[in-house]
Amino acid sequence: MAGNSFGQAFRITTAGESHGKGNVVIIDGCPPGIEFSEDDIQPDLDRRKPGQSSVTTQRKESDTATILSGVFEGKTTGTSIAIFVPNEDQRSRDYSKIFDKYRPGHADYTFDKKYGLRDYRGGGRSSARETISRVAAGTLAKKIIAEHGINIVAYVKQVGHVAAQIADPATITLEQVEANIVRCPDPEAAEKMIDLIKEVRKDQDSIGGLSEMVITGVPPGLGEPVFDKLKADLSKAIMSIPAVTAFEYGAGFSVVEMRGSQNNDLFEPTEDGVHTSTNNHGGMLGGISSGENIIMRAAVKPTSSLPRAQKSVNQSGEAVEISTGGRHDPCLLPRFAPIAESMCALVIADHLLRWRAQCPTQTGPIGDAP
Amino acid sequence: MAGNSFGQAFRITTAGESHGKGNVVIIDGCPPGIEFSEDDIQPDLDRRKPGQSSVTTQRKESDTATILSGVFEGKTTGTSIAIFVPNEDQRSRDYSKIFDKYRPGHADYTFDKKYGLRDYRGGGRSSARETISRVAAGTLAKKIIAEHGINIVAYVKQVGHVAAQIADPATITLEQVEANIVRCPDPEAAEKMIDLIKEVRKDQDSIGGLSEMVITGVPPGLGEPVFDKLKADLSKAIMSIPAVTAFEYGAGFSVVEMRGSQNNDLFEPTEDGVHTSTNNHGGMLGGISSGENIIMRAAVKPTSSLPRAQKSVNQSGEAVEISTGGRHDPCLLPRFAPIAESMCALVIADHLLRWRAQCPTQTGPIGDAP
Amino acid sequence: MAGNSFGQAFRITTAGESHGKGNVVIIDGCPPGIEFSEDDIQPDLDRRKPGQSSVTTQRKESDTATILSGVFEGKTTGTSIAIFVPNEDQRSRDYSKIFDKYRPGHADYTFDKKYGLRDYRGGGRSSARETISRVAAGTLAKKIIAEHGINIVAYVKQVGHVAAQIADPATITLEQVEANIVRCPDPEAAEKMIDLIKEVRKDQDSIGGLSEMVITGVPPGLGEPVFDKLKADLSKAIMSIPAVTAFEYGAGFSVVEMRGSQNNDLFEPTEDGVHTSTNNHGGMLGGISSGENIIMRAAVKPTSSLPRAQKSVNQSGEAVEISTGGRHDPCLLPRFAPIAESMCALVIADHLLRWRAQCPTQTGPIGDAP
Amino acid sequence: MAGNSFGQAFRITTAGESHGKGNVVIIDGCPPGIEFSEDDIQPDLDRRKPGQSSVTTQRKESDTATILSGVFEGKTTGTSIAIFVPNEDQRSRDYSKIFDKYRPGHADYTFDKKYGLRDYRGGGRSSARETISRVAAGTLAKKIIAEHGINIVAYVKQVGHVAAQIADPATITLEQVEANIVRCPDPEAAEKMIDLIKEVRKDQDSIGGLSEMVITGVPPGLGEPVFDKLKADLSKAIMSIPAVTAFEYGAGFSVVEMRGSQNNDLFEPTEDGVHTSTNNHGGMLGGISSGENIIMRAAVKPTSSLPRAQKSVNQSGEAVEISTGGRHDPCLLPRFAPIAESMCALVIADHLLRWRAQCPTQTGPIGDAP
Repeated sequence: MAGNSFGQAFRITTAGESHGKGNVVIIDGCPPGIEFSEDDIQPDLDRRKPGQSSVTTQRKESDTATILSGVFEGKTTGTSIAIFVPNEDQRSRDYSKIFDKYRPGHADYTFDKKYGLRDYRGGGRSSARETISRVAAGTLAKKIIAEHGINIVAYVKQVGHVAAQIADPATITLEQVEANIVRCPDPEAAEKMIDLIKEVRKDQDSIGGLSEMVITGVPPGLGEPVFDKLKADLSKAIMSIPAVTAFEYGAGFSVVEMRGSQNNDLFEPTEDGVHTSTNNHGGMLGGISSGENIIMRAAVKPTSSLPRAQKSVNQSGEAVEISTGGRHDPCLLPRFAPIAESMCALVIADHLLRWRAQCPTQTGPIGDAP
Repeated sequence: MAGNSFGQAFRITTAGESHGKGNVVIIDGCPPGIEFSEDDIQPDLDRRKPGQSSVTTQRKESDTATILSGVFEGKTTGTSIAIFVPNEDQRSRDYSKIFDKYRPGHADYTFDKKYGLRDYRGGGRSSARETISRVAAGTLAKKIIAEHGINIVAYVKQVGHVAAQIADPATITLEQVEANIVRCPDPEAAEKMIDLIKEVRKDQDSIGGLSEMVITGVPPGLGEPVFDKLKADLSKAIMSIPAVTAFEYGAGFSVVEMRGSQNNDLFEPTEDGVHTSTNNHGGMLGGISSGENIIMRAAVKPTSSLPRAQKSVNQSGEAVEISTGGRHDPCLLPRFAPIAESMCALVIADHLLRWRAQCPTQTGPIGDAP
Repeated sequence: MAGNSFGQAFRITTAGESHGKGNVVIIDGCPPGIEFSEDDIQPDLDRRKPGQSSVTTQRKESDTATILSGVFEGKTTGTSIAIFVPNEDQRSRDYSKIFDKYRPGHADYTFDKKYGLRDYRGGGRSSARETISRVAAGTLAKKIIAEHGINIVAYVKQVGHVAAQIADPATITLEQVEANIVRCPDPEAAEKMIDLIKEVRKDQDSIGGLSEMVITGVPPGLGEPVFDKLKADLSKAIMSIPAVTAFEYGAGFSVVEMRGSQNNDLFEPTEDGVHTSTNNHGGMLGGISSGENIIMRAAVKPTSSLPRAQKSVNQSGEAVEISTGGRHDPCLLPRFAPIAESMCALVIADHLLRWRAQCPTQTGPIGDAP
Repeated sequence: MAGNSFGQAFRITTAGESHGKGNVVIIDGCPPGIEFSEDDIQPDLDRRKPGQSSVTTQRKESDTATILSGVFEGKTTGTSIAIFVPNEDQRSRDYSKIFDKYRPGHADYTFDKKYGLRDYRGGGRSSARETISRVAAGTLAKKIIAEHGINIVAYVKQVGHVAAQIADPATITLEQVEANIVRCPDPEAAEKMIDLIKEVRKDQDSIGGLSEMVITGVPPGLGEPVFDKLKADLSKAIMSIPAVTAFEYGAGFSVVEMRGSQNNDLFEPTEDGVHTSTNNHGGMLGGISSGENIIMRAAVKPTSSLPRAQKSVNQSGEAVEISTGGRHDPCLLPRFAPIAESMCALVIADHLLRWRAQCPTQTGPIGDAP
């Protein structure tokens, strides 16, 4: 009811704030026998962590995960798995200047209205620091779906007006994404994005961007009619990430101006079974995976915290000025990829298990693994 | 697990196919004492029903609702409410020509792959006919939120290249929307949309469009961190509707090219309490309602069923031609509004009750009603 | 949240009152391809229905089920299944004498306190008539578990002081149970029970009893640590039935006076694999099925409705007398068996599917069926 | 799906094993503004901990709780609360003698059959050590319900053949329970119980017992028809505790031999509102609280681990002997009270919040607090 769990068959529950003792995630429903250790978790935590490059916030935190339960002799046991990532510096800096002021674009005001009180240290639970738990759990989901040949990659498609040229999203590899600090697989665009982010930072400002997410190797059949369509659950997963304001898959908003005869993807027989000749449907028909690649895009707003002073109000409703210091990401996109991938992986793993419960004769190779 | 329920505190569960006996919805968690009868349900069912105008399918069905339980002496009792809408003509027409062919853009292929069999009569459960249950339940959700001063209106913003001019979405009334058969509150654009839809039909084709949804009167505080953010649940609700391919709220995809200093909405004191001077955040901050109007847009793809013949494959994987007859909506938008409104109302009612469970001292006038 | 759903992977949601239009159940998560028709449902509805013999209430109702959705060409489709059982005589008799009086032992008072109003016609939703939906859905659950070799039988073990002699619960068949109108497989005890029930009715009184439930053919491995233990979910399932006041499995309450050396069932190798030499553990260890027979008992209180006048209070808190007429079951046990069996079947089917989601390599023959 | 969560509106999710790093619980849905600290948790953990007296296991563990999140400046924030209790001695002792042997009465065999592998160190997740998380979360639930005047006390009613004389369960206080090491409020019986437990230990054996649980101050109206009846949820809560084999409330199994005229509790007007003159119904009618005291009993089996050697089989299905060492509780009852109280408190808190969501006008003083 209170919103800190996600998924049904593969289900995560999280807790933790920006300035508390740390972040915890409990994973429930993981199949037994999967090899899993802290070494599987750390790489994605490192991709997410602050201070990793010149285009992210300069705060330094090591974000080291510990598995507290659910893994024995290197393998998942089928019981609940808890992962803890301590906050390194628990001392709160001096918040006396802003504790009663509402930062524009943040959840300070809405948390106060919702609960009647709030943890004013760095946003508390509304801080994007909670995404650590998503990423940690996502690494396990990625392992499960990889055993079924499913792979997820997310990358930066646009920052401000600088758009990448991507010939075929389905061919983009993790290596290409990690080849530069902005995580854009078009090297030329990446350079321009980096320049733009640096320029924006100099202006004491921030900039928005677009992420593209691709899931390959998905068998036809994933997704539940009528409310838990795969497109609906993926949309919720991505929209639940802080700062995301829009989601589309396949042709997305461009269907508005399309005719059915243009938009319809025609089925055709191939040596590799039934496929569609085009992929406007982004890999999902009737909310169920079609076997084509799933392609999605999400808009990420510019960071709300700005070094420059902004007008606002305080808890008493009086006009004030607020400035939130200088160590924020000038652009959220470079650190967005592992978070988006994790949410996609959690949805796919969950739906794999849900499908398996109901349709063992249909899940095919899925029924055999892991 | 199997996806036929939506919501938690105010929860609906649906069943029914295009050619079965009818559609049923069970509503669980409705507060007691709310006046409710079939007269409350019928107007929205009429707005959704086929055959209502020259721009919709010409199939005629009366879609009449019966309340089977949960209402006594005109009031909800607090127990589960079942509503049944029979299918008028249960005789299936001759499906022998298409029963093993996969209609492009439909869920025929994916249902077959998921379940190993399917109800081939009109799409069965994947038919948009299931939205009858959403609309029926939505009328009760609308009554609940109206008691708290919350109102929802959805309308057509664009069809093909014809876009409406809407000065202020928050002022659009149901009357304005219902003033023409395409449900676009800009009368000039509406005329052009109607012309376009008729032209498209003559071409044996279909056309996509854009719907805008506005929720007014929402108090600050609705939505649950971190996964059940209001933006995430609204996104899932809308994306679960057949044919929707994209969702955005507030500035949506346009944040990609914005700077923080442009995008941030500044809080300011007003005579009417704290408000923001602009509304790029579309009424939600940190996924929680801010008290500003909630404004969303959704893209609806062109109808997949076309009168013209299309290439496809059959169940044996052989290339075939398929044509699905002539009585389909050339554009889904005119009948979309009541469905979108219902899903929004279900989300808002659910979150009102969830908030009330946890924060009775914060819910204010909500705590007193109904 | 509001309690009208049961199960997770195989999930039912019910609606309906004693004097409304009828009772509906929606089953979500049923595997596709299972042969299912009204003919499968009716036999158990007949075992449950009023007026079936001289030891039950003399009200006559045919309780005929109609499948509204989810079954196509005789097979389940994997989508949600709705079943409707209309109430035959919807006209409410004259309730003016008791509408504001609280019947002793009934939920009249507690419903009023909970909701602020209630359907006073025959108890509304609190009437045991809602168990029709449980029985209807249970017939499908029984089919699913039967495909895995699992069988459930419930019977009357005791009525008042008359106790049956049952040498081996695991050998009792449905035929033995149905051999007499009280549903006790010990024919001698059955005779005495019938006599006792008739005597009690003459006294304008009612009598309690004990039901024993046996599940055979359960593979080891069903049940989820730590909260959804099989013993916990079976207990909830049985305790949710109206009039049940106690539940035990295996040695049950007799463990209180036992020593560990007596109570422990020792594992031993047999030609048929690992088994325990005794079955004090009633087929569940650590809340997970052990492969031994699951044996449970439930106490059912004497019918609260009595033909004789009883003291009570009315809605204004004034002392009154109430008499509720004469057509009630003098003993609930003869009609209890199909209800108890259904609840057990729902739990087992649900846990089979849940297990299958997580542990496909362990579910063995379960993974192959149905 | 996988069983590590309990509750809906006030929901806990747990993880942890006997020999892992420790036990974690995440509490979701707690109202904001409740004063809560480790000092609230510790007393009940101390009542549960091993080594506390001469009638429990002699293992010594301090079981110290740390709140990781969800509490700020001494008050709950409304966001998820994580509590961690580390295992003090993580070094596993030598399990080479028993790692492949199935301990009688334990879940070793069933876990192996369920998951295909298991953590053989002390039972892993099937160890009663997981109840630490239940007790830790229960202390918060107790605070919430105490604000509404609701109190829970559990005590030992019988050990072996030694039964306590309790004149009125509703008058028993925590002080009386804590007055002796066996937690039986009848001092004479307590002495005999202690003697019996010591005798049993000398015999290298164990002994079962009976716990009685009393909830006072419950307003009428708690519990959800039809599946989530208060009696059903309390039953599941108690039956989910390791070693519990039977549950009853009110007259319980004694209704079997009762007539309706004896069993019915008659309503009567009193100065303090409507009450029943007797309480055979144990405070629940139709599964909803009546305002009378809720009285329940649970049977707890004798400890399965015995110092003496027992026959069993190993993983290969061969006959073996197993002895599990000497530091086990000879009787589980003395440490049972805080666990049972916690489970009851979790159910009551959950149902309070669920009721509040649906019926704000009925919850009365509940609507105002906390």
